[in-house]
Amino acid sequence: MRERTFLALVHYPTVDREGAVATTAVTNLDLHDFCRLARTYGLGGVYATTPLEAQRSLVSSLIRHWVEGYGSRVNPCRKEALRGLAVTSSLAEAAEDVRRRCGESPLLVGTSARPEPGRVGFAEGRRRLAEGDRPVLLVFGTGWGLAPEVLSSCDWLLEPIAGGGEYNHLSVRSAASIVVDRLFGERVAPGGD
Amino acid sequence: MRERTFLALVHYPTVDREGAVATTAVTNLDLHDFCRLARTYGLGGVYATTPLEAQRSLVSSLIRHWVEGYGSRVNPCRKEALRGLAVTSSLAEAAEDVRRRCGESPLLVGTSARPEPGRVGFAEGRRRLAEGDRPVLLVFGTGWGLAPEVLSSCDWLLEPIAGGGEYNHLSVRSAASIVVDRLFGERVAPGGD
Repeated sequence: MRERTFLALVHYPTVDREGAVATTAVTNLDLHDFCRLARTYGLGGVYATTPLEAQRSLVSSLIRHWVEGYGSRVNPCRKEALRGLAVTSSLAEAAEDVRRRCGESPLLVGTSARPEPGRVGFAEGRRRLAEGDRPVLLVFGTGWGLAPEVLSSCDWLLEPIAGGGEYNHLSVRSAASIVVDRLFGERVAPGGD
Repeated sequence: MRERTFLALVHYPTVDREGAVATTAVTNLDLHDFCRLARTYGLGGVYATTPLEAQRSLVSSLIRHWVEGYGSRVNPCRKEALRGLAVTSSLAEAAEDVRRRCGESPLLVGTSARPEPGRVGFAEGRRRLAEGDRPVLLVFGTGWGLAPEVLSSCDWLLEPIAGGGEYNHLSVRSAASIVVDRLFGERVAPGGD
């Protein structure tokens, strides 16, 4: 199933520090980290979504640099990762592209650092993804997280990553890495803690 | 044990794309991601090591901004994370600081993306850290990874993170996040894959 699982990095609608709906700027390093992660775990690819045309154009230049341009010659590993990146104006457009590629519309699986009732634990999420046959779009928010309207449009939501204490402010790069490893990585056998 | 575990992000000696020993530039986002990760998982703190005085001075300014300056007022969560950051000129100096704080010199645990014999698996590493009582310094390399002399100075080395295929080029931010989660995170019960 992993090759039918895609990551979406959403720049709108997200929330800001005060909880207001906001558009974030695309961060170059996020795209590299997401693509390298997706490629390492054998996922289908990555979508960066932003409604801002200028930002989409920036991402397209970045893709060209690494996939066809100078970057592709000096760093073939990065080319291999970045070729999995596409940019869309919305999450719906990303989902539509997955449908086009996989022949079926994807299950939307949301992520958030806020604990709320009804979240799906990682062991259960891992089982669902392994047993399901629909393509999957794993949705991550930049800024202070996905806006409520995105979370409520998801088919289900993963539980937050708990580090063991109250503090829970991982970067989206760290959170996505841990989520993908928990869902698709080798299983670390139980040990003491 | 987690509060006696520290992360070291090494900028020299690392290797470059051709395998030559190199010094990398400090990346602002690495420091934020490492500190947020360490704080979320309740670790003791983070060391950024670089022999370049100008780079250490830059990191010190960054720490001041977030821990005492304007950043600390607009983003208290980030202050909470960045206060765990220290900058040293070498890994030895970081180890010496851990010794000073914990009363005992740390075990050096190295990480690398290259598979080599004698590596310690994550389940075994998790067990060792949970059962051991010495402080631990988990060592990560920037660039194309830690130089051989650093790896050979470590007490033991963790196995590479395997994503399931041949391609294995995670960012140091992703790799550190996955390593810390595998060693200290909640255990995800086995499921299908």
